[in-house]
Amino acid sequence: MPDKITEQIHEMGRQARAASYQLSQLSTEKKNSILLAMAAGLRESSAEILSANEKDIAAGEEKGLSSAMLDRLRLDETRLGNIAEALEHVATLPDPVGQVLDAWDRPNGIKIEQLRVPIGTIGIIYESRPNVTADAAALCFKTGNATILRGGSEAIHSNRAIATALQTSGAKAGLPDHSIQLVPFTDRQSVAAMAGMDQWLDLIIPRGGKGLIETVVSLARMPVIKHYDGICHLFVEKNADQEMAVALTVDSKTQKPGVCNALETLLIEKSIAADFLPKAAMALREKSVELRGDEASRAILPDLIPATEEDWGTEYLEKILSIKIVDGIDEAIEHINSYGSHHTDCIVTTDTDEAEKFLRAIDSACVMHNCSTRFADGGEFGFGAEIGISTDKLHARGPMGLRELTSYQYRVRGEGQVKAPVS
Amino acid sequence: MPDKITEQIHEMGRQARAASYQLSQLSTEKKNSILLAMAAGLRESSAEILSANEKDIAAGEEKGLSSAMLDRLRLDETRLGNIAEALEHVATLPDPVGQVLDAWDRPNGIKIEQLRVPIGTIGIIYESRPNVTADAAALCFKTGNATILRGGSEAIHSNRAIATALQTSGAKAGLPDHSIQLVPFTDRQSVAAMAGMDQWLDLIIPRGGKGLIETVVSLARMPVIKHYDGICHLFVEKNADQEMAVALTVDSKTQKPGVCNALETLLIEKSIAADFLPKAAMALREKSVELRGDEASRAILPDLIPATEEDWGTEYLEKILSIKIVDGIDEAIEHINSYGSHHTDCIVTTDTDEAEKFLRAIDSACVMHNCSTRFADGGEFGFGAEIGISTDKLHARGPMGLRELTSYQYRVRGEGQVKAPVS
Repeated sequence: MPDKITEQIHEMGRQARAASYQLSQLSTEKKNSILLAMAAGLRESSAEILSANEKDIAAGEEKGLSSAMLDRLRLDETRLGNIAEALEHVATLPDPVGQVLDAWDRPNGIKIEQLRVPIGTIGIIYESRPNVTADAAALCFKTGNATILRGGSEAIHSNRAIATALQTSGAKAGLPDHSIQLVPFTDRQSVAAMAGMDQWLDLIIPRGGKGLIETVVSLARMPVIKHYDGICHLFVEKNADQEMAVALTVDSKTQKPGVCNALETLLIEKSIAADFLPKAAMALREKSVELRGDEASRAILPDLIPATEEDWGTEYLEKILSIKIVDGIDEAIEHINSYGSHHTDCIVTTDTDEAEKFLRAIDSACVMHNCSTRFADGGEFGFGAEIGISTDKLHARGPMGLRELTSYQYRVRGEGQVKAPVS
Repeated sequence: MPDKITEQIHEMGRQARAASYQLSQLSTEKKNSILLAMAAGLRESSAEILSANEKDIAAGEEKGLSSAMLDRLRLDETRLGNIAEALEHVATLPDPVGQVLDAWDRPNGIKIEQLRVPIGTIGIIYESRPNVTADAAALCFKTGNATILRGGSEAIHSNRAIATALQTSGAKAGLPDHSIQLVPFTDRQSVAAMAGMDQWLDLIIPRGGKGLIETVVSLARMPVIKHYDGICHLFVEKNADQEMAVALTVDSKTQKPGVCNALETLLIEKSIAADFLPKAAMALREKSVELRGDEASRAILPDLIPATEEDWGTEYLEKILSIKIVDGIDEAIEHINSYGSHHTDCIVTTDTDEAEKFLRAIDSACVMHNCSTRFADGGEFGFGAEIGISTDKLHARGPMGLRELTSYQYRVRGEGQVKAPVS
């Protein structure tokens, strides 16, 4: 016998599936007008949303949440305005649904068309930021998908208020019922119930830390798109423009150290290490970066902190950089493929052949030549919106925009063709 | 402590990963020459393979396998020749690896290219047919993927002999070590070990019955591409060319009833049912099809077997057809989306608007207008080879050819661009 929570979540799933069939039939114009109505709805409900948010903040302070966590949780008029603006921006983006990916005729005369359609129903399981409630709902809605949102307990009042504002204002503009649903529970059992209902959810996207993703992966029967760590590398090849290599290292490491496309390990080709490493170290230390080096790099700069085996597999998300000197490009490639997280890796060199060899051999979502790893990003790629950066290889890899929230369908048109003529 | 079997399978995974990095660097020419060498190797080893197959047949007879199962298991010179020919055919197919999917420049001058790359490592878990050993290995190899094959116990001697022939002849032609590996165990624990090693396997494809797929889905931590049932429908709209509708019904149901794209349920619009149903029934009965009808259809043809609720969700895979009379296209759409398996569904009508409405509203991998459901097939689509027909919506939907065995990668080329200029 399923328990009450599981039953209620399955019922939400059934309703999401029904909504998805209506959503798939909405025109782009209609969807955009609903997005604008929902943005207006958020602004009109700002008093309710901000007062709900105050409850979460008060509860968070009582629970002793860190000031960083409280800051992520906090909403004010400006932040709420940004959330509404994000919805308006999504309305301006091109709609991938209906795009013809391929079309061809067969010798027997049947015409085959492959075109983008919504995925159907998407579960989003996320942690403390209440803006995800609106952002994720908007991106899934724009692509014709029904969404079941399950946020963390810290933001439950804010999430409820935001979801209610979206549902109410959306409904007036023609949003089908149950297109955007918020799970009213915040316990682990509700995650398990969502993860088990593969008849009702086509996809789950967990947005949060590694622990959350791991939990969802181990429970889920449906596909999960994962946004794991970014252990990103920059390899300075012997023919690098060294000034450029210093600038790229500094930018990749320090422009925003707490994100997944920031640099974690610098690899330097042996023959230029004695020349390059001191210049790079000086520039990095000017930006207060802690440097951890292998034995060979400490032979050049004895004051580096010794790097351990663990460092090569660590995503610091802070101003810390590990440094390793490699014999050449082959060792660099092997190190990156073994220790990296297959997210984003860069080579700096003026030798195009070596660069192309590197790009071909590195098994990562984004491979780069002579630019900052910080460009591995949906915004920088020009996607207009980003649901995350996938570290998966199936369906979506690297920065995910709207088109990664779609599936495809084959439409086949004939004139009575049969496989075997009736005898 | 992991047990011995798990340890050994994880070691195979580690080796597959290493092989995948070599495979991704092979040229199409090289891969094709290896495929031809492996085909020749199968022919040269025919004595060994057929004698191994005799052991499996003898063991199967002793175990009391059905004659249908023994037939699936049995190899002879002709069947082995067909397997070798299939490898030679794969060599003639275009290689999707390296295909540029998209390319654009950003305002800051970075150039972004999205192109197809191998997935990496693929696990194939399959049941009794030994030809899968060669077929799956060839398709995965052509697309630059390393394969770990885990076949059923009934075919273990045949599978071993085929894998050995492929490995030995491939190696001589330059196949990297561990590109194609066969798991030497056939127990459930070996499936669990494969399903758990998401660090070494990027994808698992189970090829077999629903029970096998369910087991893999519940254990797997990595993506699984599923080939579930095909509960396919044909809807005869009131403006159908009735002669065409009869021919399409007969072909979809009887041309090969035991496959997933065969018809299981016929839906007929009420206003033409009294006219159409007797004609369709006569043609179907000429082909010995058992007909099961709802109440309305039995009012027209009282000798139909009553259809139960269960019939609407059943993939017969036999000469049985369920028949339901619907008020119109909306009820047909609702029935198909509710009871179908989202595989392949067809409308027969001369009204293009109604046809397009149906194609847009049906949530299935293949939606068809005026042609047999039997055309939902990689071969009929012109893919040249098929690894299966996916009932998933993520990554691969519907007939899967070589391109569905690839992932993609973004290659980004710059000239020193940084996100924030160094201050």
